[in-house]
Amino acid sequence: MPHLPPSHPCILLTGFDAFGGESINPSWLLAQTLDGALLSGHRVVSRRLPCVFGEALRELQQALDELQPSLVLALGQAAGRAELSLERVAINVDDARIPDNAGAQPIDEPVIPGAPAAYFSTLPIKAMCAALREAGVPAGVSQTAGTFVCNHVFFGLQHALAGHPVRSGFMHIPMLPEQAARHSPMPSMSLATMELGLRLALQAALHVRQDLHVSAGSIA
Amino acid sequence: MPHLPPSHPCILLTGFDAFGGESINPSWLLAQTLDGALLSGHRVVSRRLPCVFGEALRELQQALDELQPSLVLALGQAAGRAELSLERVAINVDDARIPDNAGAQPIDEPVIPGAPAAYFSTLPIKAMCAALREAGVPAGVSQTAGTFVCNHVFFGLQHALAGHPVRSGFMHIPMLPEQAARHSPMPSMSLATMELGLRLALQAALHVRQDLHVSAGSIA
Amino acid sequence: MPHLPPSHPCILLTGFDAFGGESINPSWLLAQTLDGALLSGHRVVSRRLPCVFGEALRELQQALDELQPSLVLALGQAAGRAELSLERVAINVDDARIPDNAGAQPIDEPVIPGAPAAYFSTLPIKAMCAALREAGVPAGVSQTAGTFVCNHVFFGLQHALAGHPVRSGFMHIPMLPEQAARHSPMPSMSLATMELGLRLALQAALHVRQDLHVSAGSIA
Amino acid sequence: MPHLPPSHPCILLTGFDAFGGESINPSWLLAQTLDGALLSGHRVVSRRLPCVFGEALRELQQALDELQPSLVLALGQAAGRAELSLERVAINVDDARIPDNAGAQPIDEPVIPGAPAAYFSTLPIKAMCAALREAGVPAGVSQTAGTFVCNHVFFGLQHALAGHPVRSGFMHIPMLPEQAARHSPMPSMSLATMELGLRLALQAALHVRQDLHVSAGSIA
Repeated sequence: MPHLPPSHPCILLTGFDAFGGESINPSWLLAQTLDGALLSGHRVVSRRLPCVFGEALRELQQALDELQPSLVLALGQAAGRAELSLERVAINVDDARIPDNAGAQPIDEPVIPGAPAAYFSTLPIKAMCAALREAGVPAGVSQTAGTFVCNHVFFGLQHALAGHPVRSGFMHIPMLPEQAARHSPMPSMSLATMELGLRLALQAALHVRQDLHVSAGSIA
Repeated sequence: MPHLPPSHPCILLTGFDAFGGESINPSWLLAQTLDGALLSGHRVVSRRLPCVFGEALRELQQALDELQPSLVLALGQAAGRAELSLERVAINVDDARIPDNAGAQPIDEPVIPGAPAAYFSTLPIKAMCAALREAGVPAGVSQTAGTFVCNHVFFGLQHALAGHPVRSGFMHIPMLPEQAARHSPMPSMSLATMELGLRLALQAALHVRQDLHVSAGSIA
Repeated sequence: MPHLPPSHPCILLTGFDAFGGESINPSWLLAQTLDGALLSGHRVVSRRLPCVFGEALRELQQALDELQPSLVLALGQAAGRAELSLERVAINVDDARIPDNAGAQPIDEPVIPGAPAAYFSTLPIKAMCAALREAGVPAGVSQTAGTFVCNHVFFGLQHALAGHPVRSGFMHIPMLPEQAARHSPMPSMSLATMELGLRLALQAALHVRQDLHVSAGSIA
Repeated sequence: MPHLPPSHPCILLTGFDAFGGESINPSWLLAQTLDGALLSGHRVVSRRLPCVFGEALRELQQALDELQPSLVLALGQAAGRAELSLERVAINVDDARIPDNAGAQPIDEPVIPGAPAAYFSTLPIKAMCAALREAGVPAGVSQTAGTFVCNHVFFGLQHALAGHPVRSGFMHIPMLPEQAARHSPMPSMSLATMELGLRLALQAALHVRQDLHVSAGSIA
């Protein structure tokens, strides 16, 4: 792990393998753009997770154990969304509309039996959202991360770090233009815009102590 | 309470006052259609809740104490949705994008301090959804009830009944055609279709012991 | 034709056969609701057209020749729309994304070679839209009737009546709830609401001489 | 006009001034990216049109007279669209939902009195769409250019060149990310992706003689 000198605290970024018929997953392409980067004295380490229930959480736990990060942001692809989505809450249920990459399709099973029904993001999601928008990057707060492997990893992440003073959360990202070109009409975002947004999101996550007191709720 | 003879177990239905500039709220109109009805030996009692944080939960608690219902379904309006939405989960946060009917606009406050982060519906939402669709009523399972007074009441309801063998949950409903006519384009549903759906949903909630093992999840 | 006494002028309503995998077509169910009705001294005659390029126009022409209507409104199903759509313009092109009911799939062929590029509706579409909304029926003006058999019939109708003092046009309608229940999420409208809207639309088409001077345009 | 030597045939690109509360218009920013460029032996000249009914057409006509282009592509902003939209047809009506930049708001007036009801694009829009998608640029064919100044310019352009062997048409483009960031959620596209798409679209317009025989129609 030569790119992780002990003198720098670590930011763990995760992305996923491609799934659902796609040949790429923008979440991993995006995570890679910052792998090894130094942000405000923190070294970014990017790891790719399989789009597989259970296995994704085991690999996440290994990365947490190995890297002892001081900040964790998991990334995932959200087809149909037009902006970077700061997720508010992870729920303790797997309900797969399609099989994962190992062929499993759990229905209404807990992510972690006996764990709480949900965890909230511990990131300052509203400050992150505001920083992105101010810089011209489309962003929003989302009230649901779905019930597939993204929510599964988000929930497992928050459970693993519950009680620890390490901020963590999840950001969904749109498809890339080259994906959207095959699913017309489908919103997309360029990797360059995503990377700018990711840098700003991580900076806000590192530096904002008290989240903004602004609404980002939904009526229903 | 002459319409609630002690010989019948009770189903509590709730709807809301109008809010957000509307002059009516379809959830209360719908709840009224079954007020006093006898469904499989259960008497329906419908109550209107104010669209006010806190006060809505106090009135709900009074109804629960007074009626000791054996089943509770709370209803709320979801502008922009096209189908009857069986909500999966209530989260412990109020984040109001608009003021409630008393002018309050809480931001990122817990519905109930110290309570769990979320509660799942204890209704057989997939069986209910399937029953509606089979009868030709557009229906779906939703992963978020928002962060306004609907989610607030849903969360408070599940908290109040946690540990009790009383099933409870929340169903969002579309706008009525007469509302949608002023918000073009806006999906809507007639009160007659809603009433059919509500009857079938309640029958399924009364009679289905084990929910269906079918996916109604979302990817993101 | 016992329901068409010579003493009444005639309104011709058309609907379509089911297509695209559906077992019903709400446009024909709706047209039937008024078949034989007397509206402001006009007798309604409803005719079902095949969802077949060319053949639909031949049957339409036969109906026009036979009935010599004083008003014609063609109806068609528009999956995904939430309101009754008064179409503004028919264009002289067939471009079929799916085969018609006879298996034909014309691409970029004129509806009628040598005819103009487009015809505008000769109905008072804005007054009709306003009458529907005022009565609580979701309605709108649409700038495109597509490029399938609906636009084909609309174009052929306007061409057949060009230069005649007979008003004619096209109204797209949503799916029925029983159809939408199999395409979640999909907006729908009940047949009762549609019938109310149709009656009001026809009354406005009969009685409004000068259309309303209100915008119903779109930016893009 | 030193960038327009007489030895090169000319491609005229037009974009618009900002309108509707925006401070920029991506159509003009995009048109500028190629101003002066040499594409397959053609010199690109970009001109900005005012978002004003009538005046926009007068300035367009001046540019046509002065430049005698061999290809014309007009560009316009389409808020809410996620892809580059090759417009199929321009209709002879102005119906403004909002005032133009001079405060005019025509309702149901012809763009050009006495002109045909519509003109089709003379560009190979399906080959252009296919070229963009193949290169990973989200693109589609659109059946309506609206009824505002974009359709107005598109109609006037096609009318001016009717009968001339000069291809011309209109392409709507999404908002830029920096615009979308203030209209959450709103689809967007980066200027770099737009520029790639524009270059490919122009190359296809220059080189494809016979448009592709593929459907890009809509049902309704």
